[in-house]
Amino acid sequence: MISKITAEEIAENIRSNNVQGLKDLKEKLNRVNPVDIAQVLDELTDEQRLIAFRLLSKDNAADTFVEMEQDSQQKLIEGFTDNELKQVLADVYADDMADMLEEMPANVVERVLSKTDPQMRADVNQLLQYPEDSAGAVMTTEYVSLKEATKVSDAFNWIRKNGDDRKDLYTCYVTDPQKKLIGVVTVRDMLLCKKDVPVSDIMERDIISVRTLDDKEDAAKLFDRYDLSALPVIDNEQRLVGIITSDDAIDVLQDENTEDFQKMAAIVPQEDTYFETSVWQHAKNRLPWLLILMFSSIFTGMIIDKYEAAFTTMPVLVALMPMLSDTGGNCGSQTSTLVIRGMAVDEIKLKDFLRVFWKEFRIAIIVGACLALANGVRILIQYHNPVLAMIIASTLVFVVIASKLMGCCLPMLAKALHMDPAIMASPLLTTVVDVCSVWIYFSIATVLMN
Amino acid sequence: MISKITAEEIAENIRSNNVQGLKDLKEKLNRVNPVDIAQVLDELTDEQRLIAFRLLSKDNAADTFVEMEQDSQQKLIEGFTDNELKQVLADVYADDMADMLEEMPANVVERVLSKTDPQMRADVNQLLQYPEDSAGAVMTTEYVSLKEATKVSDAFNWIRKNGDDRKDLYTCYVTDPQKKLIGVVTVRDMLLCKKDVPVSDIMERDIISVRTLDDKEDAAKLFDRYDLSALPVIDNEQRLVGIITSDDAIDVLQDENTEDFQKMAAIVPQEDTYFETSVWQHAKNRLPWLLILMFSSIFTGMIIDKYEAAFTTMPVLVALMPMLSDTGGNCGSQTSTLVIRGMAVDEIKLKDFLRVFWKEFRIAIIVGACLALANGVRILIQYHNPVLAMIIASTLVFVVIASKLMGCCLPMLAKALHMDPAIMASPLLTTVVDVCSVWIYFSIATVLMN
Repeated sequence: MISKITAEEIAENIRSNNVQGLKDLKEKLNRVNPVDIAQVLDELTDEQRLIAFRLLSKDNAADTFVEMEQDSQQKLIEGFTDNELKQVLADVYADDMADMLEEMPANVVERVLSKTDPQMRADVNQLLQYPEDSAGAVMTTEYVSLKEATKVSDAFNWIRKNGDDRKDLYTCYVTDPQKKLIGVVTVRDMLLCKKDVPVSDIMERDIISVRTLDDKEDAAKLFDRYDLSALPVIDNEQRLVGIITSDDAIDVLQDENTEDFQKMAAIVPQEDTYFETSVWQHAKNRLPWLLILMFSSIFTGMIIDKYEAAFTTMPVLVALMPMLSDTGGNCGSQTSTLVIRGMAVDEIKLKDFLRVFWKEFRIAIIVGACLALANGVRILIQYHNPVLAMIIASTLVFVVIASKLMGCCLPMLAKALHMDPAIMASPLLTTVVDVCSVWIYFSIATVLMN
Repeated sequence: MISKITAEEIAENIRSNNVQGLKDLKEKLNRVNPVDIAQVLDELTDEQRLIAFRLLSKDNAADTFVEMEQDSQQKLIEGFTDNELKQVLADVYADDMADMLEEMPANVVERVLSKTDPQMRADVNQLLQYPEDSAGAVMTTEYVSLKEATKVSDAFNWIRKNGDDRKDLYTCYVTDPQKKLIGVVTVRDMLLCKKDVPVSDIMERDIISVRTLDDKEDAAKLFDRYDLSALPVIDNEQRLVGIITSDDAIDVLQDENTEDFQKMAAIVPQEDTYFETSVWQHAKNRLPWLLILMFSSIFTGMIIDKYEAAFTTMPVLVALMPMLSDTGGNCGSQTSTLVIRGMAVDEIKLKDFLRVFWKEFRIAIIVGACLALANGVRILIQYHNPVLAMIIASTLVFVVIASKLMGCCLPMLAKALHMDPAIMASPLLTTVVDVCSVWIYFSIATVLMN
């Protein structure tokens, strides 16, 4: 049901340069969703992109423009006449404009701001001043604000006249003369009630809101928890300064998940996507943790050094070492991943520590016993050596317990110290577990081998 | 600004059993958001919960009820009179009802269904029949549907009369006499245009939709891509059967992210939360991969066995082994995590394989060179042994390249084979990388040591 178009189709139509062809292209292009148009325009040459963009209807132009990659946007701005630029910018929301300008060179920013109206310029400048991770940085300033005494019918009239440039129409914010937020009323409530009641009669006074400097992830989580469609952002004096809409909240949630995946894989998190990040930047993001973890492995080496006598007497101990470390690492990262994720979605809290610890301890006993049994039998069959089987089986039990308990303690400790629990995920944990498992292994081996 | 209440406060008020106290509690409770009320009620005893629930206003009762844990819901249903049950159920949406009934015992389901009206019963029965992961299973059947010829003013009148029990009011669906979906019109568009135009004049005809059996994750991703607030679900004959709302899409996205985290940590994914899952179930979810990975480590052991002569001649080789495997594992999981996440958010596609491969190759050269240099110098200083430094440095370069390339190939291979790329994350990759790194290590060592 949804129309699509390819970059080749557009390029060919433009190259053929025939009037009917361009007319057909115009019609076809404007039936495609702006998000898809943007993706296709990104693939065209600068010249083709400008021609294709000029075929877009006024409605589609701004929507397409904000969805394009920054490079394409910049090239378009450079190609636009002053008039075209003004027209496109008039339909862009303040938050999208701020996102766009953040990464543009100064001369482009200057040209863009000179072509926007003063109110918009002030809004964008304000948005650009909030720290990157704050609620202020993802909010928009285009909302519907009503007075307490406004009647429902007047509210609808106001919306009919001014609503076109408001990003979210469906939640209206009631403010007092000092701009303090005192209530929220939805279009739903207004549609379902009589037209002559003042909004103060039907507005909700217990309002879920965030402050400009609150973490944007916390704001996004409120959407998840309370099923919101928009969230007001207030300043320290309770004055309404903007709203966050649910599409932006979804973006924040997805970005935060991506960031958590990166941190848990020992990568310094990056805002840009995989392809947008250069080879050098990728290397720079990956090296710090690799170096730290590589040098942490020295401790494991030191323990192995100490037990040289054990493994030169019984070289098979070395062959079984990776299996024990890997199992320890896997057990630990299972637990740490569940705990980190549980804390990220607010299911596991710091006060639950003992509950988690006790649960993991019991799980570790079951898992450890199963793995010990399976591996003990296999060693007996493979090496016909009951002492070796005993060493491996008992090491496994202790390693599993130790790694699962560390897997729950380390992330929660990080949280208690106000650090990010995600850094305690598999990579760092594996290194810590490695030291333990090698030590447990050789200690047990020396005892059982005398 | 938002009111909160604690379980202790409620319990104390109920225990004191004084009329004014209960009145105050009633007022206070009804100012709290239903999501928060539900969480607090979950903590009360069965008896207290029923008393507190009866204090809720009609508006809050259903909203609170659907947010509670299944155990509490069941206990409440058992405590309700037939009349109470009927009243609460009248305000529950079909999708929430289906979610709730899915996990309830048969006798409770029967009692609930007998107290709902026939239309709702039919809807719920239909929803329960869709496979768990399908779009049909997360949609709701309460939407606003209009005819082509309906005028905007009539649409508003219809909404005013019937809108109260529609989950989403803001997107209206235009259907033909066969119930085929032919257009979508938003309340926004209707508010901003004249009242006497038919909706067919302003409706959007290029509609983004999914089919009932499409994957619910794909449906949720459309919200992310197109910034939707609701998404229509159609059957094979293009007939509209329901809609998915953005709050449910956020839930699906968060659940899918959690599932990916679990898979990437070698856990069989579970629908229930950490605390809801029993110790036995946790152990059962974790054991399969641990066993597979443990036995895969046998290959690493076999390679080590083969090179016994090398490490008994030069035991320090053993001490450095964990450092090399860990570094390989970490390098590989950095790449595989980025690739898996990139594919999950649709940035990396199968056709990008060569692009990713070439990028990772260049990153690996830089990262490998840096790590080799850092570690070579450290070995020289620590052991005064240039041959050992050479062995370690050159092993590191090869291990980093091999692991980064495997980290991009394996997930993309899984995708190409229509398997879930997430299973190729760190745990399985680490085991594969282990085999390689040990083999590279001892091959280089034997050559350089002659």
